[in-house]
Amino acid sequence: MYAGSVQTLIDELGRLPGVGPKSAQRIAFHLLKLPAEDVHRLAQAITDAKERVSFCTRCFNVAEGEHCGICRDDRRDSAVVCVVEEPRDVVAVEKTREFRGRYHVLLGAISPIEGIGPEQLKVKELLVRIEPEGIEEVILCTNPNIEGEATAMYLARLLKPLGVRTTRIASGLPVGGDLEYADELTLGRAIEGRRELDA
Amino acid sequence: MYAGSVQTLIDELGRLPGVGPKSAQRIAFHLLKLPAEDVHRLAQAITDAKERVSFCTRCFNVAEGEHCGICRDDRRDSAVVCVVEEPRDVVAVEKTREFRGRYHVLLGAISPIEGIGPEQLKVKELLVRIEPEGIEEVILCTNPNIEGEATAMYLARLLKPLGVRTTRIASGLPVGGDLEYADELTLGRAIEGRRELDA
Repeated sequence: MYAGSVQTLIDELGRLPGVGPKSAQRIAFHLLKLPAEDVHRLAQAITDAKERVSFCTRCFNVAEGEHCGICRDDRRDSAVVCVVEEPRDVVAVEKTREFRGRYHVLLGAISPIEGIGPEQLKVKELLVRIEPEGIEEVILCTNPNIEGEATAMYLARLLKPLGVRTTRIASGLPVGGDLEYADELTLGRAIEGRRELDA
Repeated sequence: MYAGSVQTLIDELGRLPGVGPKSAQRIAFHLLKLPAEDVHRLAQAITDAKERVSFCTRCFNVAEGEHCGICRDDRRDSAVVCVVEEPRDVVAVEKTREFRGRYHVLLGAISPIEGIGPEQLKVKELLVRIEPEGIEEVILCTNPNIEGEATAMYLARLLKPLGVRTTRIASGLPVGGDLEYADELTLGRAIEGRRELDA
């Protein structure tokens, strides 16, 4: 329907996650209306990020250079490693300010439906870190959904023989949440994971 | 939170319409995971479209070159012009296959809240087309919302003294719609715009 390069742009934008055909069209026309320098800045940001940023060779977080900022920081506790699915999860954990250890990013989760098995994830790369880095505890911080739980169970089985303490983040009601609106699985988990109160 | 060029990319993506901070982050990490050639193709499509595509100097539809495909097509009826807000609306009308005339794209609608008055739109450019192109009917095909209606009313007042037939697209229930779920404004318009049935 559109002149060649407009259609090409719409098609390329439509490949992005969460961008359907209508949004792609909307973004494309927005770009055509914008001043040329703004559009150039976007194209440049895409090219720059792709050229400069790769994954940390140790923990697979995003990094400009060989290691990410957290792996380069000597003040972090190297005995505790938090395993997450994606680099964005590192940011989510960092924002809590509750964790001073290091990370390991799997770059995905086990998902038979999408054809993703442990071989496609950075699992081997986690196991080889345990001994040389003196890791004493691995916190499995994958998402509390089917894929994340399966991944956590799989890793727990691999880590047990290595004699490393393996923990899983708690499931339960969100802070500020409401019992009435909690789904029964979450509420069940919250009861199952109840803790003694020191009164 | 992120290394420099990742944050720059997230910021730039977050400026796009309909892309919030979370989507921007998701798209950015998606791009970092993609093969370099796919990312390059996106950046190239953005640059190409911006360089090659401009607006038709006659009707302000998107065009590669001076005139758009519709203005260049001699088989289109130049006596009828359909006035729309945006280039994407041209595509919407074309898809109906009900219209064989030409277009005029205003590149927006009158919106006092956003500070858009008739001077910011391609209104003058419409008026100067009427005589030289022998336009007999102008179909006001702006959106049936407050801005679109105001724009249609404004244009109708300007076009009347020029002796050109000015029509407005019908408002009413969508085909396949349901009376029960129609809002009262739409249903009111549908009743107001009722037509005699030849039985």
